[in-house]
Amino acid sequence: MTQNLRVGVLGATGLAGQQVLAALERHPWFRVAAVGASESSAGKSLGDALRDPSGASRWFAEGRPDASLLSLPCLNDEQLLAQPLDLVFSAVSKEVAEVWEPRFAERVPVVSTASAFRYEPDVPILIPGVNDAHAEALHDQRRARGWRGFIAPIPNCTTTGLAVSLKPLHDAFGVRTVMMTSLQAVSGAGRHGGVLALDVVDNVIPFIPGEEEKVERETKKILGHWGEPAPFAVSCTCTRVNVTDGHLETVFVGTERPIDSATATDAMDRFGVDGLKGLPSAPDRLLQVTTDPFRPQPRRDRNAGDGMTVTVGRMRDEPALRGVKYVVLSHNTKLGAGKGAVLLAEWLTREGYIERGG
Amino acid sequence: MTQNLRVGVLGATGLAGQQVLAALERHPWFRVAAVGASESSAGKSLGDALRDPSGASRWFAEGRPDASLLSLPCLNDEQLLAQPLDLVFSAVSKEVAEVWEPRFAERVPVVSTASAFRYEPDVPILIPGVNDAHAEALHDQRRARGWRGFIAPIPNCTTTGLAVSLKPLHDAFGVRTVMMTSLQAVSGAGRHGGVLALDVVDNVIPFIPGEEEKVERETKKILGHWGEPAPFAVSCTCTRVNVTDGHLETVFVGTERPIDSATATDAMDRFGVDGLKGLPSAPDRLLQVTTDPFRPQPRRDRNAGDGMTVTVGRMRDEPALRGVKYVVLSHNTKLGAGKGAVLLAEWLTREGYIERGG
Amino acid sequence: MTQNLRVGVLGATGLAGQQVLAALERHPWFRVAAVGASESSAGKSLGDALRDPSGASRWFAEGRPDASLLSLPCLNDEQLLAQPLDLVFSAVSKEVAEVWEPRFAERVPVVSTASAFRYEPDVPILIPGVNDAHAEALHDQRRARGWRGFIAPIPNCTTTGLAVSLKPLHDAFGVRTVMMTSLQAVSGAGRHGGVLALDVVDNVIPFIPGEEEKVERETKKILGHWGEPAPFAVSCTCTRVNVTDGHLETVFVGTERPIDSATATDAMDRFGVDGLKGLPSAPDRLLQVTTDPFRPQPRRDRNAGDGMTVTVGRMRDEPALRGVKYVVLSHNTKLGAGKGAVLLAEWLTREGYIERGG
Amino acid sequence: MTQNLRVGVLGATGLAGQQVLAALERHPWFRVAAVGASESSAGKSLGDALRDPSGASRWFAEGRPDASLLSLPCLNDEQLLAQPLDLVFSAVSKEVAEVWEPRFAERVPVVSTASAFRYEPDVPILIPGVNDAHAEALHDQRRARGWRGFIAPIPNCTTTGLAVSLKPLHDAFGVRTVMMTSLQAVSGAGRHGGVLALDVVDNVIPFIPGEEEKVERETKKILGHWGEPAPFAVSCTCTRVNVTDGHLETVFVGTERPIDSATATDAMDRFGVDGLKGLPSAPDRLLQVTTDPFRPQPRRDRNAGDGMTVTVGRMRDEPALRGVKYVVLSHNTKLGAGKGAVLLAEWLTREGYIERGG
Repeated sequence: MTQNLRVGVLGATGLAGQQVLAALERHPWFRVAAVGASESSAGKSLGDALRDPSGASRWFAEGRPDASLLSLPCLNDEQLLAQPLDLVFSAVSKEVAEVWEPRFAERVPVVSTASAFRYEPDVPILIPGVNDAHAEALHDQRRARGWRGFIAPIPNCTTTGLAVSLKPLHDAFGVRTVMMTSLQAVSGAGRHGGVLALDVVDNVIPFIPGEEEKVERETKKILGHWGEPAPFAVSCTCTRVNVTDGHLETVFVGTERPIDSATATDAMDRFGVDGLKGLPSAPDRLLQVTTDPFRPQPRRDRNAGDGMTVTVGRMRDEPALRGVKYVVLSHNTKLGAGKGAVLLAEWLTREGYIERGG
Repeated sequence: MTQNLRVGVLGATGLAGQQVLAALERHPWFRVAAVGASESSAGKSLGDALRDPSGASRWFAEGRPDASLLSLPCLNDEQLLAQPLDLVFSAVSKEVAEVWEPRFAERVPVVSTASAFRYEPDVPILIPGVNDAHAEALHDQRRARGWRGFIAPIPNCTTTGLAVSLKPLHDAFGVRTVMMTSLQAVSGAGRHGGVLALDVVDNVIPFIPGEEEKVERETKKILGHWGEPAPFAVSCTCTRVNVTDGHLETVFVGTERPIDSATATDAMDRFGVDGLKGLPSAPDRLLQVTTDPFRPQPRRDRNAGDGMTVTVGRMRDEPALRGVKYVVLSHNTKLGAGKGAVLLAEWLTREGYIERGG
Repeated sequence: MTQNLRVGVLGATGLAGQQVLAALERHPWFRVAAVGASESSAGKSLGDALRDPSGASRWFAEGRPDASLLSLPCLNDEQLLAQPLDLVFSAVSKEVAEVWEPRFAERVPVVSTASAFRYEPDVPILIPGVNDAHAEALHDQRRARGWRGFIAPIPNCTTTGLAVSLKPLHDAFGVRTVMMTSLQAVSGAGRHGGVLALDVVDNVIPFIPGEEEKVERETKKILGHWGEPAPFAVSCTCTRVNVTDGHLETVFVGTERPIDSATATDAMDRFGVDGLKGLPSAPDRLLQVTTDPFRPQPRRDRNAGDGMTVTVGRMRDEPALRGVKYVVLSHNTKLGAGKGAVLLAEWLTREGYIERGG
Repeated sequence: MTQNLRVGVLGATGLAGQQVLAALERHPWFRVAAVGASESSAGKSLGDALRDPSGASRWFAEGRPDASLLSLPCLNDEQLLAQPLDLVFSAVSKEVAEVWEPRFAERVPVVSTASAFRYEPDVPILIPGVNDAHAEALHDQRRARGWRGFIAPIPNCTTTGLAVSLKPLHDAFGVRTVMMTSLQAVSGAGRHGGVLALDVVDNVIPFIPGEEEKVERETKKILGHWGEPAPFAVSCTCTRVNVTDGHLETVFVGTERPIDSATATDAMDRFGVDGLKGLPSAPDRLLQVTTDPFRPQPRRDRNAGDGMTVTVGRMRDEPALRGVKYVVLSHNTKLGAGKGAVLLAEWLTREGYIERGG
């Protein structure tokens, strides 16, 4: 089908950028044509930039990158902007994204893991299979901003599992209120300013600055009609636990229409994502329900569907809310970050939002 | 005041029993006069029973027990029953407690960490300073069962922090509904059938069999009027995290009367426990509120008040429930087990429920 | 080549047995024809035996077993003995192995993860590619014991990485003395009597009963000529650390002939294992050396070669011993247990020690 | 005896500085009169500097500092230099220490946790009770450099436990060679550039830059005669494990004169430190030996002697080296850092090296 799109990666040496690169390894459609990195890496090959003076590897994603990838020169943002590209993945900090994503979007579609533009009224937060109709807004964004490209962010990694699990419940029963507690993995904090072992060994940190507001806002934006946030309340307490990868969330949901654990499970089981069929990074199921009461567990279930399947367990009635309660797990650096961004780019490509340029 | 009561400890070599013994070290009122252990320890001194053939210590509580304690012979239950005792701490499994606690209670007051009798209609679950009035039921229990003693259990270690933190809110605002997620320490599971490292390293286990029902039932019994459970709903999801000691819980509470984070904090701040003053194991405060948004943390706060103070943090409004949400931490093997049982025995002694026998 | 051998697995529901089953998934030569389990599982299908009454999975190895495997009935040892099998994997405890491995070996080759027979003079401890010549002893064992089969154990999981890394050094320089400290993963202890989280969170346990003696004895047996242990000294301190999988060992080695970090690295780099080519479970390299000073790390390197490659790093001169020092990592439940046993069976099959029976 | 010395702390807000402050709480001799911190804290009180804008505490040592301490203004180095002080604790980085320790030493004794001057020929590395005679060199240092004060560093935290445990062996048997593997806690790396949870959860890091050289050099300097390093070889592999506090080391020692596990244990048991008697921070024993084969363990033994007692266990013969092997544990942030520095200052005060100025 589509193929051989020339891809740039902004922030390639950071942890999020590496996850994008890992997700693009031997990709059938996308070819990494250029990588951007901070000034300190400028002039080095990506391989050299990923090796510190002592010989230590700074490649922290899974596997080992291809030699051809490692030989790419690290460009600064200005140089990257000058490359002929069909698509850019942005995996930089919010602050860098604020400045550079619009400059890239003037020329080329930008799929972003950063939060900088998520809350703009003309920017949809997209999860393929969940809120596909919102993608239409990209046309308006393009037009209104006078860009050839657009900015299409994925959600915060803590939003993803929650939004995917709520989607079939909201469609079938109308979500009225959500109370969520997250037990988040340390990889979500990245490496710069990352969680110190000293702080989390034999411990839990009961606060992640800014996280709760993001999840509450994004979940309603994603599950609402375009331009109209979903009319339910979302309330979160986000904590950090001693886990490398995989965000676990306990969810209490109240619904408009009668629901119980059986009907909720059934709705989730029936939640198909035909629209993802054929996309290289798509899992067989975006959402699965387990009946083993001790699951999902981060270490044993995060790699379900190669890190792209959300797993729900412990479905029970929740009488006080006239709803249900359950536990949901999603892989924060795969579905929730690099590979999720690649899946979104694949879907946008197949839907015609991204195409081979001149 | 009272002093020199002769104390027996049932299940002395188990983890819960050791915690009772640790809490009784150099106790000004209570003297450990006899210890009971399983048949495999019978005939050994406690010191020998706590050392395995390789020379390894099986003393897992803090500190090191006194030589005089270690020289006590391990008695079987029948032998222990024959001792002249004023008070027995029971730290055995539910199954053993079902058989032996009544036999001991025929003769002597029993303060228990086991769940066997918690749900009997004539057995109060006591937290001194929280539901003191329920202690009166011990008189009826005594009379109705024809016992000289009684059975007075402490709550499940996951109930304690929740009940203490809800008490001032319920008194001031009337709790209507509670949604709680626990992040529980591995020590709560004890050593027999305890949590394997293999299962919890880099992981969370989202289910603890029986725990949620216990917390829901006990919280309502403790915070209700005697004979009448509190009329609110409690809904829990209990998980196990990679922490040694200290149960953290996220709580969403709806109330009958208007509440916000300021008034809730104020109610908790004003929650005094004058009734505990002078008891050897009592903390200065049973409940404290922190304004540091990153606290409480299990490792850094579990030993507040020498493990006897419950810490609340992250108090916020909860509009969806017209209530508040917060995080609460309590030490599961101190306030929630051995030392909590000793505190209860101290309070019962001062209130005249336990006295020096003939 | 060889194929369709009928395989039995003794101790199939245990952790070691599950690892054997996982390594046999979709195996091109071996077909699991029958599984043995303890009496408590007798009469159940393997699938039912691996599910406890609450619905919880007791499958702890990677992936999920095939439906055809799960439908196999669990046999007791006597029943398993009556099956027509070409090969048996024994993954039972030392005590069970002492009784049952000889009974099976009367009829059929037994490849074992148990230590019961490792130290018998007519039983070689085999690592394919390391001490292939020892396999000849199986003929003598067969003859002397009057068995149609034999017992062929793999080493203790802590021996494997050490022996593989010493092999090229011993061949080229003559090992004189070895001082090793292990940092072992908790999975090595299995589930029955496994390491409690309570004991190893924020902790190290500096003793593993029996382990040091095994490693010392086995390393010398494997690297010696048959019937004559290698004439060097091995001295170990074995510790348990808070890691799920992957045994890391620090090694100080003195040699007979001059050695330095460069020549040692070179010898290891040149250590090829042509004899493993074509075996389904063989890695490309049995031994690899990294120059990144921060590697090998258990979590990041244990799955090298799909868990079958031993990784050495931090190679340095060791003047005091006139030798070298280094760090070595091997996967204790793959190369060091289930999959290592399957590799040995593959090699024995290709070498003609195991064949399709009548 | 001595008392009321006016103490300054350089680097007071850092982790090492906080540990010094914690060790000085309610100190009978030393009163914290002034604290120095980086420019970003200048003008704030210590209390404000230890609270970030969100209200989060940046006090990471144990307990909570006194109000009087928190009200001290944070001075920059120049301002601190102008204070009337009798003694300065330096807890800054090597780079800052290189510049500022000499400037302070011109006026006042400096006791330092930094490595900047440890390897200067006129600077002794002191452990009271181990190499007291080296302190005389401070007189020469003073004279030769024309200082009123001096620089007296404590060793690297990984050296301390090793040197203390080797001292009685070296005295009695003459140490010939030492091979040591450390399993170090994450707190040793501090907070700036500290160990990320992402790197050490379910993992071991087999390299700590610069650490092995420090331990090798310092151990020989401490255990030698002044001006003449001990004539034995020390070879180390230093690793980082998932432990908060407490460095565990496995040690293989060869000696000049015959030794075995019994005589080695006896020498350690007899190792008294009468010279520390009466010092406020001194433990009853600087070194203790346990016969429990599963000890010492970091979490269960690091606080022996309130963090000031080194614990040795697993003493065994080591035939290959004609020596012994054992495991040793010491608390890296108490004896090995802040409190160890305070103990040294106490000893220097009692010995007349530090006195009340004008």
